[in-house]
Amino acid sequence: MSASSVKGYKIGVVGATGAVGQEVVHLLESRNFPVAELRLFASARSAGKTMTFRGAPVPLLPLEARGFEGLDYAIFSAGATRSREFAPIAVKAGAIVIDNSSAYRMSPEVPLVVPEINPGDLTPDKKIIANPNCTAAILGTALWPLHQAATITRIIVSTYQSASGAGAQAMAELENQVKQYAAGEAITRSVFPHQIAFNVFSHNTPVGENGYNEEENKVREEVRKMFHLPELPICATCIRVPVLRAHSESVVIETERKLSAAQAREILAHAPGVKLVDDPASNHFPMPLEASGELDILVGRIREDHSHPRALALFISGDQLLKGAAWNAIQIAETLIGKK
Amino acid sequence: MSASSVKGYKIGVVGATGAVGQEVVHLLESRNFPVAELRLFASARSAGKTMTFRGAPVPLLPLEARGFEGLDYAIFSAGATRSREFAPIAVKAGAIVIDNSSAYRMSPEVPLVVPEINPGDLTPDKKIIANPNCTAAILGTALWPLHQAATITRIIVSTYQSASGAGAQAMAELENQVKQYAAGEAITRSVFPHQIAFNVFSHNTPVGENGYNEEENKVREEVRKMFHLPELPICATCIRVPVLRAHSESVVIETERKLSAAQAREILAHAPGVKLVDDPASNHFPMPLEASGELDILVGRIREDHSHPRALALFISGDQLLKGAAWNAIQIAETLIGKK
Repeated sequence: MSASSVKGYKIGVVGATGAVGQEVVHLLESRNFPVAELRLFASARSAGKTMTFRGAPVPLLPLEARGFEGLDYAIFSAGATRSREFAPIAVKAGAIVIDNSSAYRMSPEVPLVVPEINPGDLTPDKKIIANPNCTAAILGTALWPLHQAATITRIIVSTYQSASGAGAQAMAELENQVKQYAAGEAITRSVFPHQIAFNVFSHNTPVGENGYNEEENKVREEVRKMFHLPELPICATCIRVPVLRAHSESVVIETERKLSAAQAREILAHAPGVKLVDDPASNHFPMPLEASGELDILVGRIREDHSHPRALALFISGDQLLKGAAWNAIQIAETLIGKK
Repeated sequence: MSASSVKGYKIGVVGATGAVGQEVVHLLESRNFPVAELRLFASARSAGKTMTFRGAPVPLLPLEARGFEGLDYAIFSAGATRSREFAPIAVKAGAIVIDNSSAYRMSPEVPLVVPEINPGDLTPDKKIIANPNCTAAILGTALWPLHQAATITRIIVSTYQSASGAGAQAMAELENQVKQYAAGEAITRSVFPHQIAFNVFSHNTPVGENGYNEEENKVREEVRKMFHLPELPICATCIRVPVLRAHSESVVIETERKLSAAQAREILAHAPGVKLVDDPASNHFPMPLEASGELDILVGRIREDHSHPRALALFISGDQLLKGAAWNAIQIAETLIGKK
């Protein structure tokens, strides 16, 4: 593919072979993103290999400064260290960076954006745009319409996070443990600190002095930043479950104005980025198996929490590789180019 | 075993071959419960078979009215229908009934007892004693010491419930689905309404008009009854996870008096029926894999919930077949006979 032959933008994908990077490439294709040139960056191990885009092989390039020359957009999904080193280089080369890592999320000068929530933060002067943590993006997308209707004053969330949120190796570890179990073999592990098959455990990030782990701190701080509510009271408990893909979240919100379950259901039924799955008669509610591969967040189990005068309980499932990462990045790019 | 040869009590176990019944028989043995005679009742399918108790075979008897004659205690774990039919018969025959089913839990004249919480409800006039729902028993045991110290004013709980809470067949279904996955076969199901392997879903009990499912309503009403607080605000979200055994619960409590995380940790470290597992340095907290087979409830992740002036967050794992069922029943029996 040559730059001149196709109308559109020159796009770089950093970490193209990773779980998120692959989804980014797939979405550029399935969304018919106007790509004039695609440059795929991967680790040295992938040198000489290719990935397929629109039926043609695209070479995997080593990550080096000169690779960014002439790019319009660079989507980074290769970890915070690489983002910190190469995002400023990409910007200097003229690209706008959409960063899936945690490197810039809490930088005051960097907008942290979910297009359904705060597209107005995408001002032309911003050359690095941060993509939120998967759990925060999924939570924020589901809650924002309710916040607009009734003003959320407190969020309590307990998560059911899949293995793939910890990367492809973690997902492989769960699959491997299940196969070991099926074969009657001893279960081994190397990625997670505890057995993940047939178990749940507190999220595998370090616990800080406040008693909250890194994931829980991210959820709190990132939702506050996206909502422009730096003091919003949020209590998160992040837990891993033996699910391959898609995160789920059990949420209670308190609001300034009373919202009935029926009102909340009506609001969410028409909210962007959200799909209402709330059928008590057939016991059909959001599940990670059904959220996997979906661009929208599934929301259901909407009911009044009678333990507070103005509270609602709900259950959410969202694909953390899509809305929690790749899809939100593509949405940001689509918003920037004005694509609808 | 003859009635006269051993000093002790004549015990009947109804539903002896079920997941809970087997644990009851095992605990009568391992706890050296003074059993003079053991009568094991099972369904007609088990007629002619035996179970081993203290090295000797005990015949499995059909469930019929005359079987209760002369018993001191009858422990029922055979579902609400059988309890409703046969518990009054057992009482008429002179036995005290400890019932693991939901049949009598909310009857005003029947005490619902966790011995760590409300042993005083075991008055001599009570001939039927109800054993609480597994999720409620585990929650109540962990929270009661904190309630005594600071008076709980609200409970918000999201559960991570294992397959075995739905019986041995449900546990087998999870194992079978995992084996089908490992073999590359299509995953089938017949017990749960949704695939349980690699999935989480809202608890498989009917959803009532208030939007809460039966399990959630049980948790709320039973904790209220055990705590003697019929109005205690409680919001429960009950979720199944692909775990074979032991339930986990993510809990936020609000209290009348402020309790620091350190104070709560100190209280729980010395509370009966509870084991503190709270090591941030090694990321070691309660997990169902470690709670399985434990009589005590594991409690950890204790931290202040800064989204409220007087709130604590914690995470609990407990074996729902033991403290959630068989062990609590045996504890009730031990309390009744004054065994320590």
